[in-house]
Amino acid sequence: MPILCKPSVSVPEHIITMEDTLAFAREAHAGKPQLPLALRLIENTGVRKRHLVQPIEKTLRHPGFQERNRIYEIESKKRCPEVIEKALENAGLVATDIDAIIYVSCTGFMMPSLTAWLINEMGFRYDTRQLPIAQLGCAAGGAAINRAHDFCVAHPESNVLIVSCELCSLCYQPDADDVGSLLSDGLFGDAVAAAVVRGSGGAGVLLERNASYLIPNTEDWISYSVRDTGFHFQLDRRVPGTMEPIAPVLGDLATLHGWDIGGLDFYIIHAGGPRILDDLAKFLNVDRTVFRHSWSTLTEYGNIASAVVFDALRRQFEEAERLSAGSTGVIAGFGPGITAEMVLGSWVPAAPQHVEAKPAARSVPRQLSGSMVGTA
Amino acid sequence: MPILCKPSVSVPEHIITMEDTLAFAREAHAGKPQLPLALRLIENTGVRKRHLVQPIEKTLRHPGFQERNRIYEIESKKRCPEVIEKALENAGLVATDIDAIIYVSCTGFMMPSLTAWLINEMGFRYDTRQLPIAQLGCAAGGAAINRAHDFCVAHPESNVLIVSCELCSLCYQPDADDVGSLLSDGLFGDAVAAAVVRGSGGAGVLLERNASYLIPNTEDWISYSVRDTGFHFQLDRRVPGTMEPIAPVLGDLATLHGWDIGGLDFYIIHAGGPRILDDLAKFLNVDRTVFRHSWSTLTEYGNIASAVVFDALRRQFEEAERLSAGSTGVIAGFGPGITAEMVLGSWVPAAPQHVEAKPAARSVPRQLSGSMVGTA
Repeated sequence: MPILCKPSVSVPEHIITMEDTLAFAREAHAGKPQLPLALRLIENTGVRKRHLVQPIEKTLRHPGFQERNRIYEIESKKRCPEVIEKALENAGLVATDIDAIIYVSCTGFMMPSLTAWLINEMGFRYDTRQLPIAQLGCAAGGAAINRAHDFCVAHPESNVLIVSCELCSLCYQPDADDVGSLLSDGLFGDAVAAAVVRGSGGAGVLLERNASYLIPNTEDWISYSVRDTGFHFQLDRRVPGTMEPIAPVLGDLATLHGWDIGGLDFYIIHAGGPRILDDLAKFLNVDRTVFRHSWSTLTEYGNIASAVVFDALRRQFEEAERLSAGSTGVIAGFGPGITAEMVLGSWVPAAPQHVEAKPAARSVPRQLSGSMVGTA
Repeated sequence: MPILCKPSVSVPEHIITMEDTLAFAREAHAGKPQLPLALRLIENTGVRKRHLVQPIEKTLRHPGFQERNRIYEIESKKRCPEVIEKALENAGLVATDIDAIIYVSCTGFMMPSLTAWLINEMGFRYDTRQLPIAQLGCAAGGAAINRAHDFCVAHPESNVLIVSCELCSLCYQPDADDVGSLLSDGLFGDAVAAAVVRGSGGAGVLLERNASYLIPNTEDWISYSVRDTGFHFQLDRRVPGTMEPIAPVLGDLATLHGWDIGGLDFYIIHAGGPRILDDLAKFLNVDRTVFRHSWSTLTEYGNIASAVVFDALRRQFEEAERLSAGSTGVIAGFGPGITAEMVLGSWVPAAPQHVEAKPAARSVPRQLSGSMVGTA
């Protein structure tokens, strides 16, 4: 069975704290009736800081959809290669070992997607399969893991690189003052993540069973309104309550696999917001600290869309000493649809002799640029 | 091995002939230096007529990106269900038999993609996996077949529905007068296609081996410029020459499989334009009539993007009497990257006792609307 190796995550160098966000909201909504609500929503996110690809002054300006996409292209090309190199290294592989690239991003649009550029620039084979996914939003991280699993099973001995490039700040809409927009203004952050699913070998999460679930008749609860000014994020006020129907689905999935959803050893959950994590803990009847990695991602980076599950999983790898061979866990991403993408997996520790150490003959990336902080 | 069943294809009711296109070009480019080139490009497409979702007068106006996407949503919801019902019927399945929906479209953008609406409206199971692909352009039809194959292998006994909804006329840009735009104004048409890949049972093309290939350093030869006015199709003048590097890749793929690319029984090739089909015949050293289904699609519908391979394959099914069990063939889509998505398959005839007849208890679609012509 395929193994999901340690993700690499990078967040940009421009930092905005909750205090900054509150100050900007006081300015943006000065004298308007929505100000108290905006401040309360921002405070309730629990997001202490976020990382952005541009300085805050530039982030707050809307230069048009065309220019936004141009910035997206520049920033994604600047920031993805380093993260990808680190993910390959984490998996003990080089670019030519990769058979498919799944690129997920809902915050900028390019055709062809970045996959073609990555193949040309980073030394991937020209027969690498490309799977760009733009329309699954925050659920796309989970979907990428699940489709990578499927590819590895269908093509034995193959390896899949997942790249999640979410530059959420490029979807900021200064004129929007509905509740969903006010909330998202304080919630979303930017990040780039990458991880490799190995068809054989490697250490990490053995991907045992995947599934997807659409909450009936909620297709307009999380959506983009596509306008001349780009993607406008729309969030229904019922979204925070969606963990009640999702929890039993996760429970049933575990039961089907012979596991107890309440007794797993690790939980990698999409940090959509504090209510999502609190509610899911309640409805799964688990202690809220089992979601500590998701809480850390939310607090330190904000909601980084499809990259959340990779960052939370990276943190899990960093306390791998708490796990042992066969420790059980779940990864779940939630996004538009409303869709849950779920996978059950078990822990495969790194062999003590460092089987995933760098091979002697590593391919040298043909282009690496960009200044990033927090690459892990 | 999974089997690709007979596709269903529908083209809209508004027809524009080559004569109409020439007349509109004479008007649009009257007195401008590009007029003779525009007329020559349109005539050279060989496209005799195309089908559009709106009357030509409306098609020629640009109401803004937001309005275009609104029309895309309305038209896709109006036109997809009927085509999907027919594809399910062709596969001898009902909606609840489907385990994954792959929705491909590069001509409108929605998040969530139409998959969520389809599940809610057409009686698919809520655990149906959703895979929307927006950024592979004309290659997405081949990619959808290949990823459907992978899913069926990874999840035995499962079935995947592919939907290709390409409303190319909604990307018409009245102000564009570069060569690529002049050509595409005469080339692209609208269509909706669907097909089922069955993990077991069924009749059609047994999917034996898939592959992908990126022509090195051509990522900007076919692309969208994403602007405030939407997607602007950009075509490099070197694109028509790309069959020279693609042909040996197809040849090597067949050889690897123990087949001779020049001696297959059927060829389902993306009808990007007449030069693509002519060149590929030349470089594969096959008679141009082996691409007759692609020529028919191109002549009668224009280049319908990712839907081309499904329409050409539908035509192949309609002359199934020329094939026998084990007849060999290839399906190849070409698109941005420049990417070729390829699959080798062999023919599995329908059993004489009509194994794929409708089951007794068919699910009744909860909503079916839209007037379509040419549903096949």
